[in-house]
Amino acid sequence: MAALASAPRYPDLTLTLTLTITSSYHRPPIPSSHHDLPLHPRTIPHPAAIHAAYTLIQPHVHQTPLLTCQTLNTIASTPQSAEALSVTPYEGQAPANPTFRFFFKCENYQRIGAFKARGAFHALLRLIAEKGKEEVARRGVITHSSGNHAQALALAASTLGVPAYIIMPTISTPSKIAGTKSHGAEVIFSGSTSVEREAVVEEVQAKTGAILVPPYDDFNIICGQGTCALELEGQYRDLVKEKPQLSIRSEGKALDAVITPIGGGGLNAGVATFFSDKTTKVFGAEPSFEGGDDCRRGLDTGERVDAVSTLTIADGLRTPVGLLNWEVIADREKVAGVFAVTEEQIKAAMRLVLERMKVVVEPSAVVGLAVCLYNEEFRRLVEKEAPEGWDVGIVFSGGNTTVEAIGKLFS
Amino acid sequence: MAALASAPRYPDLTLTLTLTITSSYHRPPIPSSHHDLPLHPRTIPHPAAIHAAYTLIQPHVHQTPLLTCQTLNTIASTPQSAEALSVTPYEGQAPANPTFRFFFKCENYQRIGAFKARGAFHALLRLIAEKGKEEVARRGVITHSSGNHAQALALAASTLGVPAYIIMPTISTPSKIAGTKSHGAEVIFSGSTSVEREAVVEEVQAKTGAILVPPYDDFNIICGQGTCALELEGQYRDLVKEKPQLSIRSEGKALDAVITPIGGGGLNAGVATFFSDKTTKVFGAEPSFEGGDDCRRGLDTGERVDAVSTLTIADGLRTPVGLLNWEVIADREKVAGVFAVTEEQIKAAMRLVLERMKVVVEPSAVVGLAVCLYNEEFRRLVEKEAPEGWDVGIVFSGGNTTVEAIGKLFS
Repeated sequence: MAALASAPRYPDLTLTLTLTITSSYHRPPIPSSHHDLPLHPRTIPHPAAIHAAYTLIQPHVHQTPLLTCQTLNTIASTPQSAEALSVTPYEGQAPANPTFRFFFKCENYQRIGAFKARGAFHALLRLIAEKGKEEVARRGVITHSSGNHAQALALAASTLGVPAYIIMPTISTPSKIAGTKSHGAEVIFSGSTSVEREAVVEEVQAKTGAILVPPYDDFNIICGQGTCALELEGQYRDLVKEKPQLSIRSEGKALDAVITPIGGGGLNAGVATFFSDKTTKVFGAEPSFEGGDDCRRGLDTGERVDAVSTLTIADGLRTPVGLLNWEVIADREKVAGVFAVTEEQIKAAMRLVLERMKVVVEPSAVVGLAVCLYNEEFRRLVEKEAPEGWDVGIVFSGGNTTVEAIGKLFS
Repeated sequence: MAALASAPRYPDLTLTLTLTITSSYHRPPIPSSHHDLPLHPRTIPHPAAIHAAYTLIQPHVHQTPLLTCQTLNTIASTPQSAEALSVTPYEGQAPANPTFRFFFKCENYQRIGAFKARGAFHALLRLIAEKGKEEVARRGVITHSSGNHAQALALAASTLGVPAYIIMPTISTPSKIAGTKSHGAEVIFSGSTSVEREAVVEEVQAKTGAILVPPYDDFNIICGQGTCALELEGQYRDLVKEKPQLSIRSEGKALDAVITPIGGGGLNAGVATFFSDKTTKVFGAEPSFEGGDDCRRGLDTGERVDAVSTLTIADGLRTPVGLLNWEVIADREKVAGVFAVTEEQIKAAMRLVLERMKVVVEPSAVVGLAVCLYNEEFRRLVEKEAPEGWDVGIVFSGGNTTVEAIGKLFS
């Protein structure tokens, strides 16, 4: 690790993002019989819908920075130690020796501290466009979540003058309840099982007519989250044009790959959709602890795993992949592979990001980096595909943690 | 705290720094009788020397980002609670109600993770300019430090092809020893008292002829550290021009104030020197724990405190202010005041920076922010000086901490 000297760089931020907005995007017809159905129930998202989403949400979200870090490039481009391999099926084999240049898309610097703001603003803006401001403001929106989606929807709703009802389990951490309330949302408590939560949702809906905005299994949510890929691609191109030395090659070509965490799959499906008409390969990353790698296991058997029960430290990734998300992610033309990492690997990656990059991320955010650093199967794949190496975009999905939580993780 | 929604912004990074380099700066004459004397033994630094320093070091250091954070502006611009005041001499009084707009100069993103890289590169480049590359490369440089200066000098020396001898107490933490060695420096162990360290320095100097590069009490070190003020001022002007809403006023005027930590005083003296011919007021911040506020106490009595023994968590600020540094800081035309904060206040500020800004800083880095947030004397001064509020530049001096250290601080 001779690269202690390298501090993170923020060079991309010197650039103005140039976008080609496809204004000719037409929404598919909406079922008129039941106006609370998802707006595009089974429509598979497409790249033009992500460009259109970006036009809508751009005034409301941050263009998050794209960072590079020489130290992490060096560490990832060094073969793993025999000791590290001794706990894997690769014991005794020569370690893979891939070369990486990382480009970190820092959604921990997004509003509310996570990419979820993109999807929530997009879903709500679409609702208003479809149903009219008056109706949405009168009925309000509702969701059940104890995580980042709750805060994201609360922020979007208060920004757009819409009441928000957030169903949270009574056992939610006080700081998350306070965070959601601070955006003016009405927090309503429920039991913690999904049956209990949904009962409260129905009860509130019966009283208010509030419209459900699901956290990930939704066309508009997926397209909203996909806008981070659109920004990432533009920032990468501009950055490499200005500083070709940051890239594996100096030809100004596209990113070789992008890797994102997979929880419900909204982020990964959105990113995969955006790149589906481009050369960049998209990968997913999951925690393996207690079967948290439901998506990877589903791809192995060809069937979506619809229930997961894991207490992985990557708490944003404890949910199974949604139905519509699965349809995107299971398409090998869109997602080239999903890889899993252990709790120790997640912690090691998180330590590097905090101590070397000086950037605060939550455990869920670093599973993609952990795959690049420690998943020998992925590292072999990169070495085989490209002996000269890969430029890889890594999405840091969020940064909502506390100093106590960091202390507990590393105690 | 209704500002949870605000994520940090990186807008300044869209700007290109425009510098007016004063090339007519002439160095004062060097005493030729003893070529190991400090190059400018008693010369008080001046702004032109900082411009000249920047020209020299620019190829070797990062232009660190200038960040803003609405959440912290809002918190600082809210009066303190009666509970907070109850542990201060202000109990029972109406709390001060100043208004702040902060501009964070993030030297935690500097090479080796701290501003010290600026001074070390400058001192070494000046040595080479004065004595010639051949002599400096033959003799090498030496310092005694267990902190950021050791790594900074090791990096500068390896970059410029000069041997570096770093005297470190045997009890130094292994990661700091490893960090220093990773830059190719020769680490030599000593006892931990200053007498023991200096004996080893003399011994190594006798053998090698190595030239001492002191950590702060030195003209060239002060001028090097001052370059962060030069960057800060340019970045602030460009940023406010582009986004006037980030400033208290929209007239495009100068920063009202800048505040930095004071340990040995190299950073504060350099920043104060840079602003000494401008309208911006410069302040210093120290930990009060176990008399760590030696500079503030010295200013009270008019006499420099030359020995301090504190185990403040702000471990970079445990040293007394140096002689030449004192001459700058004690000049009321240059430094408008020095304020102290408690360990709890430092921790509270550090928590806000980690959890809200998602930026990793070390405790020493946040004493300036802690003064703005919690020092009632300073807050009254700001309220009185400017009812409309102040634009304040805050230097985050470094980010060299570990997840274990963070955990221990907040356990």
